[in-house]
Amino acid sequence: MKLNIAVLPGDGIGPEVTNQAIKALKAIAIEFDHTFNFKQAPVGAIAIDKHNNPLPDSTLDLCKSTDAILFGAIGDPKYDNDPTAKVRPEQGLLKLRKELGLFANIRPVKAYDTLISKSPLKKNVIKDTDICIYRELTGGIYFGEKKLSDDGDTASDLCEYSRYEIERIAHLAFKSAQNRKKKVTLVDKANVLESSRLWRKVVGEVAKDYADVTLDFLFVDNAAMQMILNPKQFDVILTENMFGDIISDEASVIGGSIGLLASASVGEKYAMFEPIHGSYPQAKGKGIANPIASILSAAMLLDHFELFEESELIRKAVEKALKLHVTTPDINTKYHHVTTTKVGDFIEDVI
Amino acid sequence: MKLNIAVLPGDGIGPEVTNQAIKALKAIAIEFDHTFNFKQAPVGAIAIDKHNNPLPDSTLDLCKSTDAILFGAIGDPKYDNDPTAKVRPEQGLLKLRKELGLFANIRPVKAYDTLISKSPLKKNVIKDTDICIYRELTGGIYFGEKKLSDDGDTASDLCEYSRYEIERIAHLAFKSAQNRKKKVTLVDKANVLESSRLWRKVVGEVAKDYADVTLDFLFVDNAAMQMILNPKQFDVILTENMFGDIISDEASVIGGSIGLLASASVGEKYAMFEPIHGSYPQAKGKGIANPIASILSAAMLLDHFELFEESELIRKAVEKALKLHVTTPDINTKYHHVTTTKVGDFIEDVI
Ligand SMILES: CC(C)[C@H](C(=O)O)[C@@H](O)C(=O)O
Ligand SMILES: CC(C)[C@H](C(=O)O)[C@@H](O)C(=O)O
Repeated sequence: MKLNIAVLPGDGIGPEVTNQAIKALKAIAIEFDHTFNFKQAPVGAIAIDKHNNPLPDSTLDLCKSTDAILFGAIGDPKYDNDPTAKVRPEQGLLKLRKELGLFANIRPVKAYDTLISKSPLKKNVIKDTDICIYRELTGGIYFGEKKLSDDGDTASDLCEYSRYEIERIAHLAFKSAQNRKKKVTLVDKANVLESSRLWRKVVGEVAKDYADVTLDFLFVDNAAMQMILNPKQFDVILTENMFGDIISDEASVIGGSIGLLASASVGEKYAMFEPIHGSYPQAKGKGIANPIASILSAAMLLDHFELFEESELIRKAVEKALKLHVTTPDINTKYHHVTTTKVGDFIEDVI
Repeated sequence: MKLNIAVLPGDGIGPEVTNQAIKALKAIAIEFDHTFNFKQAPVGAIAIDKHNNPLPDSTLDLCKSTDAILFGAIGDPKYDNDPTAKVRPEQGLLKLRKELGLFANIRPVKAYDTLISKSPLKKNVIKDTDICIYRELTGGIYFGEKKLSDDGDTASDLCEYSRYEIERIAHLAFKSAQNRKKKVTLVDKANVLESSRLWRKVVGEVAKDYADVTLDFLFVDNAAMQMILNPKQFDVILTENMFGDIISDEASVIGGSIGLLASASVGEKYAMFEPIHGSYPQAKGKGIANPIASILSAAMLLDHFELFEESELIRKAVEKALKLHVTTPDINTKYHHVTTTKVGDFIEDVI
């Protein structure tokens, strides 16, 4: 198979981890006789520095002309602490999601047996956890109208959802549940929010097309609690943009490190693959960033093109690295830990 | 001291737990020669059933004429699963908060040594955790304009904040930090939300009045993760309404059970005290509901009137109940557990 892949390394540790994912994909290409072409483009703070635009047109054009996008991370503290900054790195990511119509962010969360001891949660609580979070990604309060009064003393964000935005991701979530444990949990705040009540209504209707799947409802505050008390109760979680952001980051502790969690953002036409960790600027260039989330994002990319044997090989290689403790310090305190690049080299070699 | 206390038991387990708090307060009144008068009034689903109004005027009037309010819980599943219900129990609670101007919800979270083994989190992670969450309670997306399009296919909620709403709770949070570990962490999503950027700006300004207190910022997704990875890093957490709802419920697992967490909701004129757990309808009438959160809310009520010796006695009695395992099944699996009423009796006796 021939695939053109846009690589958007972005900020902070983005470039270093993405490089390891590229190495894994190149090894796969050799092993299975595929042709993967990579083209890089700037996004985020680095694009602001160079082009004064967190998502230059040339980057967007590249994304639209390729088969898939490998994304690193975005964000820089110099913008976070300046509430008045007009241009911010995150706008690049949000615009990219919107322009490419990447409405579903899929975040699998698994407890790796070899890493269970690393989690702040007890072994019996997380063992065998296997959750897939479907987070809506192009709607809600992220994209609703934002206002700041002239005197700068009142600010607002609008959380808006329409039926079709809910339907299309709900179908994906139910389809996924059919191949899993046949349970979808909708996380919302229907006892307070009008938009959540719409979610509850529409998802209830979509559920009728999937008689073999059970639909549960959970308020987001309770969900944040249940995720820690008893994560095994979940199979597929379906939720809106902001709640998905919070719940999926929280869920990352189950796996022992956010440095392990990959995600796919898909739409009608495009697909993008990114680790869920952010740019982690404090770690930049130190060789301590965990590349596994990015490498597993590459595996999700292969899944997307139904290259299942290939993605399986990546996952096997990752598991081997975990088992042999060829890992970065975030998940490795007992054994000799290695650098970002060394983890990448090891996984490349195994493949 | 003479205090008139309005008691709003509400729904589900609300009445049973509130009764135990009243018993504790009555015992305190005898012990310290105070006069506490209690007057009950309906709120929530039970008030809808009786008066077709989740917050009857008579209930609101009672609250306004008393010194403090002891609140139980609110909510009934028959409304949760009907997205079209026009009247819902939660409206009662929200209206109460708004009408009484209870803008700050204060939620202390502590890891009790005797209960540490009950938490899904590891002992070394939670030991000595001592957090106080300041959640804004009368603004944000809870109270912003809600819209539903005529065809019922588009719904929205507005999250709006003004400077004074942020300032007044920020001052409370900083003052509290001055008597604690001198650190305030603002939880927001300033990389996406305009309202969060206003929070960041205003809180940064308020911080200048409290030179002895350090101010930190954390994005809510990261905060949801840090709360489990390393809760000890927190002292005072300050946040808006919805984020506070999620983060504080999540934090409840640190203490071993949500059945232990009390809260105070305060404003310029009124103050209300309530457990943070909800109505837990499945447990209603079974004698398994943990009354400790409600009893500790009563202790917060005493604190509010600077009856510190009295509140200390309640807390001592609670600790004794925990130590001797005179507790409900949620926190007691190893020993013989007792009923809601028996826990209340024990604490009353100790006092
Ligand atoms: C960087 C930020 C805008 C982004 C989000 O909130 O969506 C990130 O946290 C994520 O989850 O991908
Ligand atoms: C019942 C509900 C409206 C309420 C809230 O979300 O504020 C509850 O969850 C709480 O935290 O007190």
